[in-house]
Amino acid sequence: MSGFTGATRQEKDSLGFVEVPAEALYGAQTARAIVNFPISGLRASPFLIRAIVMVKYAAAKANGDLGLITRPQADAIMKAAQEILDGQHLDQFVVDVFQAGAGVSFHMNTNEVLANRASQILGGTLGEYQHVHPNDHVNYGQSTNDVFPTAMRLSASLALQQLDPVLHSLAKGLEGKAKEFDGILKSGRTHMQDAVPIRLGQEFAAYTVTICRAKDNLQYADSTLWEVGLGGSAVGTGINTHPEYRELAIHYLKQISHVPVWPADDMRYAMQSCAPMATVSSALRTLALEVIRISNDLRLLSSGPNTGFREIDLPGLQPGSSIMPGKVNPVLPELAAMVGFQVIGNDAAVAMAVQGGQLELNVMMPTMAHNVLQSITILTNSLRELDHRCIRGITANADRCAFYAQSTVSLATALNPYIGYARAAQVVKESIATGRSIIDIVREEKLLTEDQIATILDARAMTEPRPKEA
Amino acid sequence: MSGFTGATRQEKDSLGFVEVPAEALYGAQTARAIVNFPISGLRASPFLIRAIVMVKYAAAKANGDLGLITRPQADAIMKAAQEILDGQHLDQFVVDVFQAGAGVSFHMNTNEVLANRASQILGGTLGEYQHVHPNDHVNYGQSTNDVFPTAMRLSASLALQQLDPVLHSLAKGLEGKAKEFDGILKSGRTHMQDAVPIRLGQEFAAYTVTICRAKDNLQYADSTLWEVGLGGSAVGTGINTHPEYRELAIHYLKQISHVPVWPADDMRYAMQSCAPMATVSSALRTLALEVIRISNDLRLLSSGPNTGFREIDLPGLQPGSSIMPGKVNPVLPELAAMVGFQVIGNDAAVAMAVQGGQLELNVMMPTMAHNVLQSITILTNSLRELDHRCIRGITANADRCAFYAQSTVSLATALNPYIGYARAAQVVKESIATGRSIIDIVREEKLLTEDQIATILDARAMTEPRPKEA
Amino acid sequence: MSGFTGATRQEKDSLGFVEVPAEALYGAQTARAIVNFPISGLRASPFLIRAIVMVKYAAAKANGDLGLITRPQADAIMKAAQEILDGQHLDQFVVDVFQAGAGVSFHMNTNEVLANRASQILGGTLGEYQHVHPNDHVNYGQSTNDVFPTAMRLSASLALQQLDPVLHSLAKGLEGKAKEFDGILKSGRTHMQDAVPIRLGQEFAAYTVTICRAKDNLQYADSTLWEVGLGGSAVGTGINTHPEYRELAIHYLKQISHVPVWPADDMRYAMQSCAPMATVSSALRTLALEVIRISNDLRLLSSGPNTGFREIDLPGLQPGSSIMPGKVNPVLPELAAMVGFQVIGNDAAVAMAVQGGQLELNVMMPTMAHNVLQSITILTNSLRELDHRCIRGITANADRCAFYAQSTVSLATALNPYIGYARAAQVVKESIATGRSIIDIVREEKLLTEDQIATILDARAMTEPRPKEA
Amino acid sequence: MSGFTGATRQEKDSLGFVEVPAEALYGAQTARAIVNFPISGLRASPFLIRAIVMVKYAAAKANGDLGLITRPQADAIMKAAQEILDGQHLDQFVVDVFQAGAGVSFHMNTNEVLANRASQILGGTLGEYQHVHPNDHVNYGQSTNDVFPTAMRLSASLALQQLDPVLHSLAKGLEGKAKEFDGILKSGRTHMQDAVPIRLGQEFAAYTVTICRAKDNLQYADSTLWEVGLGGSAVGTGINTHPEYRELAIHYLKQISHVPVWPADDMRYAMQSCAPMATVSSALRTLALEVIRISNDLRLLSSGPNTGFREIDLPGLQPGSSIMPGKVNPVLPELAAMVGFQVIGNDAAVAMAVQGGQLELNVMMPTMAHNVLQSITILTNSLRELDHRCIRGITANADRCAFYAQSTVSLATALNPYIGYARAAQVVKESIATGRSIIDIVREEKLLTEDQIATILDARAMTEPRPKEA
Repeated sequence: MSGFTGATRQEKDSLGFVEVPAEALYGAQTARAIVNFPISGLRASPFLIRAIVMVKYAAAKANGDLGLITRPQADAIMKAAQEILDGQHLDQFVVDVFQAGAGVSFHMNTNEVLANRASQILGGTLGEYQHVHPNDHVNYGQSTNDVFPTAMRLSASLALQQLDPVLHSLAKGLEGKAKEFDGILKSGRTHMQDAVPIRLGQEFAAYTVTICRAKDNLQYADSTLWEVGLGGSAVGTGINTHPEYRELAIHYLKQISHVPVWPADDMRYAMQSCAPMATVSSALRTLALEVIRISNDLRLLSSGPNTGFREIDLPGLQPGSSIMPGKVNPVLPELAAMVGFQVIGNDAAVAMAVQGGQLELNVMMPTMAHNVLQSITILTNSLRELDHRCIRGITANADRCAFYAQSTVSLATALNPYIGYARAAQVVKESIATGRSIIDIVREEKLLTEDQIATILDARAMTEPRPKEA
Repeated sequence: MSGFTGATRQEKDSLGFVEVPAEALYGAQTARAIVNFPISGLRASPFLIRAIVMVKYAAAKANGDLGLITRPQADAIMKAAQEILDGQHLDQFVVDVFQAGAGVSFHMNTNEVLANRASQILGGTLGEYQHVHPNDHVNYGQSTNDVFPTAMRLSASLALQQLDPVLHSLAKGLEGKAKEFDGILKSGRTHMQDAVPIRLGQEFAAYTVTICRAKDNLQYADSTLWEVGLGGSAVGTGINTHPEYRELAIHYLKQISHVPVWPADDMRYAMQSCAPMATVSSALRTLALEVIRISNDLRLLSSGPNTGFREIDLPGLQPGSSIMPGKVNPVLPELAAMVGFQVIGNDAAVAMAVQGGQLELNVMMPTMAHNVLQSITILTNSLRELDHRCIRGITANADRCAFYAQSTVSLATALNPYIGYARAAQVVKESIATGRSIIDIVREEKLLTEDQIATILDARAMTEPRPKEA
Repeated sequence: MSGFTGATRQEKDSLGFVEVPAEALYGAQTARAIVNFPISGLRASPFLIRAIVMVKYAAAKANGDLGLITRPQADAIMKAAQEILDGQHLDQFVVDVFQAGAGVSFHMNTNEVLANRASQILGGTLGEYQHVHPNDHVNYGQSTNDVFPTAMRLSASLALQQLDPVLHSLAKGLEGKAKEFDGILKSGRTHMQDAVPIRLGQEFAAYTVTICRAKDNLQYADSTLWEVGLGGSAVGTGINTHPEYRELAIHYLKQISHVPVWPADDMRYAMQSCAPMATVSSALRTLALEVIRISNDLRLLSSGPNTGFREIDLPGLQPGSSIMPGKVNPVLPELAAMVGFQVIGNDAAVAMAVQGGQLELNVMMPTMAHNVLQSITILTNSLRELDHRCIRGITANADRCAFYAQSTVSLATALNPYIGYARAAQVVKESIATGRSIIDIVREEKLLTEDQIATILDARAMTEPRPKEA
Repeated sequence: MSGFTGATRQEKDSLGFVEVPAEALYGAQTARAIVNFPISGLRASPFLIRAIVMVKYAAAKANGDLGLITRPQADAIMKAAQEILDGQHLDQFVVDVFQAGAGVSFHMNTNEVLANRASQILGGTLGEYQHVHPNDHVNYGQSTNDVFPTAMRLSASLALQQLDPVLHSLAKGLEGKAKEFDGILKSGRTHMQDAVPIRLGQEFAAYTVTICRAKDNLQYADSTLWEVGLGGSAVGTGINTHPEYRELAIHYLKQISHVPVWPADDMRYAMQSCAPMATVSSALRTLALEVIRISNDLRLLSSGPNTGFREIDLPGLQPGSSIMPGKVNPVLPELAAMVGFQVIGNDAAVAMAVQGGQLELNVMMPTMAHNVLQSITILTNSLRELDHRCIRGITANADRCAFYAQSTVSLATALNPYIGYARAAQVVKESIATGRSIIDIVREEKLLTEDQIATILDARAMTEPRPKEA
């Protein structure tokens, strides 16, 4: 740990003596975990730290009320917890995200930091624990097996609170473009082939709904996180808990977190099953699938400038090539797609973990927490940038769009109700073979009157339903 | 096609002449598709055939009402559709599930079968189409691009209607065992290590809630399928549709399908985006993850007879080994796990397809439909068998369970509130080292009085919360 | 079973009596499996049937040589096996692909068919087994646990033998186009933006190497399948086998299959681990990833006709739309992408199965076999069609390509060595802003002499390395 | 950046002016990237930094030899590169792993650091670039599009060099246990049910081969990385490169990296296709699948102490529970499984990225590099710990194993050759029903003589092939 002097103190746990940095708020088990898990260098997400500390705050308050720990102990633990929620001591959470099953080490790290800090508050010394003990007081009536599942769910819900407004803003950004581009006529494309006319604004309106639906989907998923098993302690039976503890602790957890958590219908279920993490991860994946798709569309529509579609221009954010001068790439759509790929990968890791439970517990939770929280974080950050620095600056090339609207051979589709599909297909064939326009051929072959041509083959009118002409 | 004589008739489409079996209800484009897509030998799910035929029925009825096709045409198409819904002509749907993008071939197969059968009804001849034409009448105002997405969503919803009661029954089956085994005390296990006592019924109650939650999750996912884009025709703009068609057709579709479909807020969105298929696939995956987990637990708990846990016995369904006589394996949990793996794989294919859309259309829909429908089918069938032929026949070995309840070293957990975690850990250590029981050591070292031992170390009492002893 | 009269015979196994269709070559355990596993309707791949029958042939020959079954028994089993290899009795393999763990039911199906057919050959009656018994003679010294892993590996190797020449032909097809299009100059595109000139043939040459490398990769993967554990019997220890059996049986298996199988270094490893199936599945996935990428490129390059790139035309195979007349879609690249998605999904299922082994055995093998064999089959069929009916008919639009080659703003890249990246970037900026060509600006601003322009800005010369001009 | 004073200097690129920290070795484009990509907080792996710097070293040396940059420029760039390879300036690589497509920003970060440091070496000032320019000199004849693919491959190969000895050591550790436990007889288990006897050492020998095969597989995968496209520059055509540059640069790259890189057969292929990254990622996944499986086995075999199999004991590394005193969990197998899950997830992300290329380039490379390098790193670290701190300390409980060896009902398997499978199955049934041992029943029912019992039913003899008794 940067900032430590190198001096150590000695602590003892059930396996023997351990050296701990003298100034550390953490203790023996955290020190063991540092040695045991030098794996990735990645530490717990701030969302997870906040969430577990809220759980500890709520548990201390409930146990204090019930007289199971003393009032001064409860108050000191709550004060220590509040300091962390206020942003202090975050550097004391030092355990790698790849660690002991069930997150025991991260949980003990939390218990130790709170115990030591609470001890200090009560005038004690680091590492002594007679005022406040990590297991006997901070963790009274608790177990990694109910605390971590609860904190994991809560952390994801807290993180989703930051993604939600970004999605709202992104939808607004797209909606703005939908309105701005509503008058711009272009050709649709299906199977990457000429299709019938559509308005550019209609495309962006569809993207808007896409993001709104993904947002709704995440809100549903979020709600599945709120059923928590705190109070189940070791195996979901509530051993060593007071009969009133569970309701009380979850009540306080709701208060401090502003997340509407509620006591699980079945505490064993809430311990065994991590399905809500899969549900959230899936909803993030669905968002990612849509983000990838829209990003790919933006890259297609802005392809060019001279060898692509170039229906729209994206804002230039940085030189696009180390060798090709003047090149400007669609960097934020590319970024968004790559983030989407990562979210898909993270979701696969979550799924593996969720199915990996055995009997009373799923020890694979740290993997779930890490991946879900990373996915939310990178989606939040990349979509915020995509919205602000790309979508909102998109401009349309109306002339190029208009050219396509008039060129698409699928204008002939509007002929179907009048001359039939088979005859219309001949017109298209002739147009492709000769390079002459659909209208020219229709006129020449007298398939429609001039009046009919003016109405039936009006590209703009093709972008909405309309009655068949008399 | 079995049943065909080998005689052919000639049809013509925009690319030229095609030979079609003389008796086939399908036509030129289906014949082309047979040649073009000899890939897997797998044909469309009955759910997809039903769904697309319902769409055609509803469209014909609406177009008939609006005078866009004649009343006799509409009636004949509807009658032909009803025949298929009644189980006839299913052998005429011959296109491989791996086929043209967007399911154009499967859609044209449907249009051709309906056109030919409706023509027959009106006194016409197979392959002539002057009475009823596949494109001009059956497909009036429609496109693969609004029909297939609508049918795909509907087919998944229809299929889920068959899974739902199976999940309900499975939950009932588990609940029955939860009650039956509620009195059976055993040891919990976390990290595969001795944990504190739990009742076998509590474990099965948790499985019950697990299945109920997965069922709820699927019901949410199902509801996202009901927003359909029928009426969008070629690119979601409703080209060649009457302004009243869309509402009317979807109204009729709701009537005939008994699925609460409703017109999409944005038809372009409903065409571009296949997110609801990802949402359903994800919910199926979450169910699969839980099924795998529970199946693994059942295999653990029934391991033995002499070298495993053997807390429960599963019904013996078939000899378990070609070489080891008398062996009986947990075949249905194994099957359920394998089905779960397939569902996970199918979901990965769905995700690839859902992100693969471009601009107005996602042509990868056939992959989504195939995988989601297969997942629902194999989950429905395997969970029905698991419920009826495995879960409901499980018996418990109460003596073995009781032995574990008394043996687990984690009985010492109940000592924490009285002697502290550290002292309790010494007791456990001594128990493991010497083989003496926790109670013996507590008694000998006078850590508790006999009265306290009787209450505090009562294993059954450990399976619920309780106040601290005075 | 179609073809059965409905009459039954009664058989008995260790769990009791079972009714079997009177004419069936299979017996009691197969009949149980039909009842136990009504899951998907999918039956074993012909490759798997061939492979397991070859294993049985080889085992019978070895056990006959060693005197463990009688010579007439051995000969009859081998004759029955040969009949199946010659294409008979395939309809007797009736077990669903989703079945008992480890494929016990499929294995017993095989043992029963061979026992009954061999009994017939020796003058016996169906279902009696005194001449040849499924367990005691056909399965002598064998177990599902060594037979199925061996057959699974062999089946994949046999199937890969059919994919390999398709890949060879596909590479040839691409190579042909590489040569045909070598003179066609066009613009490269990176990040979907104008890049420097390239020749169309260079692109197809790269696709050629892509397929060749994927083919090499599959050949490596194939070779990992050849280490087989036949002879390990129940748990890899060879219980109930003669010390010479293993080498002999694998020798005969190599002879009959023409696949260079060899005895595993460690029979326990070959039973526990299914890693070679993951390796093959991965190599299929890598091929799929490349096929998806190339298919997407083909769809981009052929986009149009009037609103896309239209650098190439794909052969038209069928009308592309039920509503848009004259539309021709890139159906085979779309198909290939969808097949690729399925292969990715199948691979995920395989991975789940491969990690799902426990102790001596991985019971999840049927899932692996099904998915790997399906992936090989659909890749073989779709790539054969892609090659023959799409790639080989591609034509180039040289004019459109030439237009792009002259239009790309990245022509300015060739200026870097002469005027520096920063100055060249200004030229590009000016070109985009004014619509004037790179050459015009260079000429006007006298950045190069006319001679230099002729050589340095020659687009074709940019498609190969060249020394810096003096 | 920690360590910066807050003072800035101004730089200019083709999009305008940018403020850069005054002391930074990086420049304008890196500064833009910091603003554009505030996504994950994760920076490039040290392996990737080393690899790209080696590429730059080799390119500078080659361009210096060919007179395309001056000798002092070349020497200064090479000296700057060597400083980084010696561990200096690593804090100057500040771009997020989620960044511009193709890694343009990371590449320009590298070009800028080298240009500024080389300028300093030549007496220049930070940010001026007249001595050495990032694009014109450091990047002479190079493009992100050939440099990044080459560096990505090289970085993975460098990282694999660290995993390989860890796998070797792990295999040695397992082999040691195989020898140590070779005499310990136990029962095999298949389908989690009693199977025939096996020796504990045979199980560990199988794990040994498992790791060796996974290692071989990675060596093959590694070799596919060595074909590199350096010299292809912008689109694989080698624009702006000297005809001799490519061979020369790759020769120098091989020299400095000690990795046997060689010039790609087709430079376009090596730019378009990232298949080797998928191949490496797959091989890592296969290793992960095996690690998960073995870890699960270790958790099963060490389950207990009193309610599980307890055939082996794992070293206790830390207290296992915050509530259950004295509990010791299998933390390193749990960790290894979680790492395995992450590798599976990372592989899914890689696959998405590999299929995501378009035309000349796959811009999704940063995702591939991040995931493959993270997978290698966490596998290296976790397997090293698993080997040293878990596997090598495993002890066996010979008595418990012996008890199982005598108890398994599958001892009856050895009776098959003598009394037939059906009769042996009856013996097992009776044993399970009555609790009497197989031997007792055989003796009582006089199925074998005492001599036969002594040899045929000798459990240890069952662990190897043997001839049938006369």
